[in-house]
Amino acid sequence: MSHNTFGHLFRVTTWGESHGPALGCVIDGCPPGIAFTPADIQRELDRRRPGKSRFVTQRREPDQVKVLSGFVPSDDGETLTTTGTPISLMIENVDQRSKDYGEIARQFRPGHADYGYFVKYGLRDHRGGGRSSARETAARVAAGAIARKVVPGLVVRGALVAMGEKRIEPANWDWDFVDHRDNPFFTPDPASVAVFSDYLDAVRKAGSSVGAVVEIVAEGVPAGLGAPVYAKLDQDIASAMMSINAVKGVEIGNGFAAAGLTGEENADEMRMGNDGRPRFLSNNAGGVLGGISTGEPVVARFAVKPTSSILTPRRSVDLEGRDVDVVTKGRHDPCVGIRAVPIGEAMLACVIADHYLRHRGQIGG
Amino acid sequence: MSHNTFGHLFRVTTWGESHGPALGCVIDGCPPGIAFTPADIQRELDRRRPGKSRFVTQRREPDQVKVLSGFVPSDDGETLTTTGTPISLMIENVDQRSKDYGEIARQFRPGHADYGYFVKYGLRDHRGGGRSSARETAARVAAGAIARKVVPGLVVRGALVAMGEKRIEPANWDWDFVDHRDNPFFTPDPASVAVFSDYLDAVRKAGSSVGAVVEIVAEGVPAGLGAPVYAKLDQDIASAMMSINAVKGVEIGNGFAAAGLTGEENADEMRMGNDGRPRFLSNNAGGVLGGISTGEPVVARFAVKPTSSILTPRRSVDLEGRDVDVVTKGRHDPCVGIRAVPIGEAMLACVIADHYLRHRGQIGG
Amino acid sequence: MSHNTFGHLFRVTTWGESHGPALGCVIDGCPPGIAFTPADIQRELDRRRPGKSRFVTQRREPDQVKVLSGFVPSDDGETLTTTGTPISLMIENVDQRSKDYGEIARQFRPGHADYGYFVKYGLRDHRGGGRSSARETAARVAAGAIARKVVPGLVVRGALVAMGEKRIEPANWDWDFVDHRDNPFFTPDPASVAVFSDYLDAVRKAGSSVGAVVEIVAEGVPAGLGAPVYAKLDQDIASAMMSINAVKGVEIGNGFAAAGLTGEENADEMRMGNDGRPRFLSNNAGGVLGGISTGEPVVARFAVKPTSSILTPRRSVDLEGRDVDVVTKGRHDPCVGIRAVPIGEAMLACVIADHYLRHRGQIGG
Amino acid sequence: MSHNTFGHLFRVTTWGESHGPALGCVIDGCPPGIAFTPADIQRELDRRRPGKSRFVTQRREPDQVKVLSGFVPSDDGETLTTTGTPISLMIENVDQRSKDYGEIARQFRPGHADYGYFVKYGLRDHRGGGRSSARETAARVAAGAIARKVVPGLVVRGALVAMGEKRIEPANWDWDFVDHRDNPFFTPDPASVAVFSDYLDAVRKAGSSVGAVVEIVAEGVPAGLGAPVYAKLDQDIASAMMSINAVKGVEIGNGFAAAGLTGEENADEMRMGNDGRPRFLSNNAGGVLGGISTGEPVVARFAVKPTSSILTPRRSVDLEGRDVDVVTKGRHDPCVGIRAVPIGEAMLACVIADHYLRHRGQIGG
Repeated sequence: MSHNTFGHLFRVTTWGESHGPALGCVIDGCPPGIAFTPADIQRELDRRRPGKSRFVTQRREPDQVKVLSGFVPSDDGETLTTTGTPISLMIENVDQRSKDYGEIARQFRPGHADYGYFVKYGLRDHRGGGRSSARETAARVAAGAIARKVVPGLVVRGALVAMGEKRIEPANWDWDFVDHRDNPFFTPDPASVAVFSDYLDAVRKAGSSVGAVVEIVAEGVPAGLGAPVYAKLDQDIASAMMSINAVKGVEIGNGFAAAGLTGEENADEMRMGNDGRPRFLSNNAGGVLGGISTGEPVVARFAVKPTSSILTPRRSVDLEGRDVDVVTKGRHDPCVGIRAVPIGEAMLACVIADHYLRHRGQIGG
Repeated sequence: MSHNTFGHLFRVTTWGESHGPALGCVIDGCPPGIAFTPADIQRELDRRRPGKSRFVTQRREPDQVKVLSGFVPSDDGETLTTTGTPISLMIENVDQRSKDYGEIARQFRPGHADYGYFVKYGLRDHRGGGRSSARETAARVAAGAIARKVVPGLVVRGALVAMGEKRIEPANWDWDFVDHRDNPFFTPDPASVAVFSDYLDAVRKAGSSVGAVVEIVAEGVPAGLGAPVYAKLDQDIASAMMSINAVKGVEIGNGFAAAGLTGEENADEMRMGNDGRPRFLSNNAGGVLGGISTGEPVVARFAVKPTSSILTPRRSVDLEGRDVDVVTKGRHDPCVGIRAVPIGEAMLACVIADHYLRHRGQIGG
Repeated sequence: MSHNTFGHLFRVTTWGESHGPALGCVIDGCPPGIAFTPADIQRELDRRRPGKSRFVTQRREPDQVKVLSGFVPSDDGETLTTTGTPISLMIENVDQRSKDYGEIARQFRPGHADYGYFVKYGLRDHRGGGRSSARETAARVAAGAIARKVVPGLVVRGALVAMGEKRIEPANWDWDFVDHRDNPFFTPDPASVAVFSDYLDAVRKAGSSVGAVVEIVAEGVPAGLGAPVYAKLDQDIASAMMSINAVKGVEIGNGFAAAGLTGEENADEMRMGNDGRPRFLSNNAGGVLGGISTGEPVVARFAVKPTSSILTPRRSVDLEGRDVDVVTKGRHDPCVGIRAVPIGEAMLACVIADHYLRHRGQIGG
Repeated sequence: MSHNTFGHLFRVTTWGESHGPALGCVIDGCPPGIAFTPADIQRELDRRRPGKSRFVTQRREPDQVKVLSGFVPSDDGETLTTTGTPISLMIENVDQRSKDYGEIARQFRPGHADYGYFVKYGLRDHRGGGRSSARETAARVAAGAIARKVVPGLVVRGALVAMGEKRIEPANWDWDFVDHRDNPFFTPDPASVAVFSDYLDAVRKAGSSVGAVVEIVAEGVPAGLGAPVYAKLDQDIASAMMSINAVKGVEIGNGFAAAGLTGEENADEMRMGNDGRPRFLSNNAGGVLGGISTGEPVVARFAVKPTSSILTPRRSVDLEGRDVDVVTKGRHDPCVGIRAVPIGEAMLACVIADHYLRHRGQIGG
């Protein structure tokens, strides 16, 4: 049992606060013999990095990863190979302007973890949100870069599919566009960029914020991962996604829409393929039936609430038990859902890597 | 790590198949000194029991629980007191008509776990769904009856809030009506009974099925349970709910609707109460902020897909790799979401009991 | 985390008290496709069973095991095959003469768990030792019978090597004699039977008790099981053996004797065998180096303290805080170390099965 | 489940190799509000540090600890207070003379983990022992410095009680002498220093090595920690001690000697104290009965085998399957048992801190 560890055989333990010297993670249980480069990790971190556009927080963090253990270098030092021992990754904090937080250090910010956190631990870290800060997710993204390499053929991609009241057009879905340099939103719909830009500019200038919906898809997941009761693959995906800051809902495949369907509409029929292997004719299940992967793409969506840090005063109380009005200045994402895309990908990759090893442990092969 | 265990300090391990001699669970970590009666458990099991109305499966299972360990009896034997040692609960299977399943024993039923289960384990339990059978949830409900007693003042209640395309009217919400004898749906809205009855009768007679949405509310949850990263209270709730058969989505508080709101709309403001304690002025968060309980009611909803066992033929394949058309005769729930209500309650009670002990372990008090 | 579970991927959870209706265990994580019979389990239980000779407790317990879940039967019902789902085993208690314990129900028996148990849980189970009773070990032996089948080629055997001040002659070691019907001691030295008989008869008639040393050897353990830091194979063996009632010491290979040796004496040298595979020329390490198995037989020994239930009055206190003199009448083993032999075998089999699956999970193959 | 984590609620995950840039640990689950200083940790590290006398390895490692997370500093920055979030500790490697290992990089050193490690992971870290290096234990000692502060009133001390064929005189036991500057052995017996010095000088000059026995005593352990079955306090102590490099045996209280005693001799009698609290009249049990602490000092001993790195050639094989003679040059401890004293203390402190939190979780108070 651990408060800061995720996974069973592929285990990720994260540590660090936004205003301490560094943050990082330890990956335990990664199989030996997997080649990777620090650049593989850095690429994912750069996708999540703040300060890349006017639509995300202006905090300047280079988020440079250091690989401290768990590998043998190649002779030229370029490529690292895992040894099966713990991989320790560290990211030093650079831009720790704690004065931004100073004025509200004794107030409970509405929508933030402040109140429950204080009741729980009996203290406030006056220098920021402590472990509730979204900076912790950098460590997850770093771990996810390793997880992606554990399952042969696994491809995990994500996209923003809704922002506030705006939604993408599914018919326009283009995976290649998600990481395009002219796309600050991880949207898969090129036509949506202008819509989201105008919308979020207005939100941002109003000092407001909006929520979002993110979809993550994993292809190349072997059939048979998961288990029927408390090791359901989708159960662990739900846990993983809900563990991301500001996430308030998770669904698999048709998700909540399935509640409105009939059995005829929702069931995924099968037929034998020409290659002698069974095929599903649809994927309403999102790649998981009865907690076990079917071999179809695993599809998860999660809802991110609007950033709670806004310029409009909100009623609250302070540590002294006084009524106060709180305005959260500082550098914040007007839509934290944007940067949640690489985080969601990382979490899904970690879940699948873990279940891949668990399956191999119990079943073999 | 365990495939059939849920929880960390309040741990429930379930075992048993629908067509074996019995099923049950072992509860490990329950504190000593808690008084309970077998009738406390039986009452919850009776709520979930099949065969109670024409709207649920006609399988006849008395679901009588036996308490095998973990208690000292009172002198009159009526009341049991937990000893802090494992509580073993067993329910014998009575109605094991495996012939119902015989004809499809070699087919993969669309929408069922059959295919992934077979790929994983390399075998079919020809006598039913094995561990994928919803009968396993009886053990959860039994465990939940104990979990409810672990946290002083905790009240966990659930209700069906949507069935297929029909929804309740929230303004009519009446908790007392949920367990009313004239209410076969666990709906909190008296006016919905007629609507759901007509609707589900039509579905049932057509040999079809529909999905549902269930809401579970826990009151009396102390502020401070959970943790900021991988022991988020809502993360474990999501895991628990998604572990229930046929659940495809989970949300907390505003859930997916939060994605469409602004920060002003979604934040729960606070003011000091007359008693000198802080009050939240709304509960959009569903009682959990940053993974930690706020003291407000914890509100979770989950989507249940339509029963996959339907009379309309569906295309599939069989173990020999032949295309087949599958019709799932036998006794099935036309809307499995109904009986998911007491199951959802049990899971939420287990999660909260577990976090209550975890909090006490790390923090004390 | 669990108080009553042992193992990670091959997980055994035991439950039940000596004076309740039954006891048992749930084995989670056993691979599918393993054939076994209830007789395989019963054979091991019969080896541990009380009442077999005048040298063990006269409590009469048939210890008949029921297999409740986790298998599919063969057509004739004789052979069961594991399905990969939890295997629930139950043993009903028959001989629950709780009156034996009545007179000391309010006293702390010296050498027993009574005092700490009471301080911990705030209650005494007035009907016996509760979970501290050695009856719990029947569940371990049952689980071990399954564990033995998980690792292909694994053979786990044990023997009593010392009783009080008497020791066997290692030169006489005969594994075949251990389970001989004329051997009530699990001694591997035929010449020791007369010595142990005379010695233990005297001890028994004096109402006294003696300790013992047990050695367990596992052959067919593949090289490479375990891990270098906190998943050392010998670490988990030490944990397993020390978890057996009355065990006060554990050692691997040369064990404590290694402390008195030089590096030259203790190191196991190697040479290539004629078959092109490396051979160890000795096994001072007991089959484990740096926490990882070497392929040599794994050799563990543990010390069992003398039974604390004796007829000589011992000074103690009671629940009311009064000085009392305690005499433990009733039916007790004069040397609990004897029946610890099959228990130690079972625990070693469980540890190795668990590490076999863990290794396969992380490394594959 | 984790290969590199120890503990359940007080969890320590270590990472790092002897020849990488750094090593360290993450402590998860430490309660909030505990004051400590980096000097508290450094003091323990300095006790374990190499290079302090001619009797330990001459590797020069300052072992300076950096505290990276999990605290709030006092205003003057001198004192840190735990926040309940993960405490990350890092120690940079300075003296990484990997050339020392070069010549035997392709040989399996007898008595070392090399062979099993290679079979397991399929690779050799040609720069040293990887995770099998005793350098990993620095991280344990750092974690133990925090663990010591978790249980109020806990005092954990250790001593070397035997080296090779030499033993201390128990009657001379003087805890204050253990850390005396003229005592390079952690012996509690001042008269033993000359004996051990002469003995170990001869061993060292011969290029040989010897084993040792270490005793660790924890005072101030509350009665009631542990649990009767698989969470026995002594079980976890056995696991902890056996997880230390080169340890081959563990015992509690009388340990193996208990096997030779009668029940009368071994039982610890009790009487009421003048203060109305029960007293044990002896401590043969070493502070643990039935897996639960009695309130008496917890006494554990462990056997350390002789260092396997010796100058006398030993027969072995190499990666190419050739017979070779191995001589382990380089800088090594002639008796690794000496530096095992602070390591054993750290492990015992961690076990007790963990059980203290586990007890509080299940039982409260």
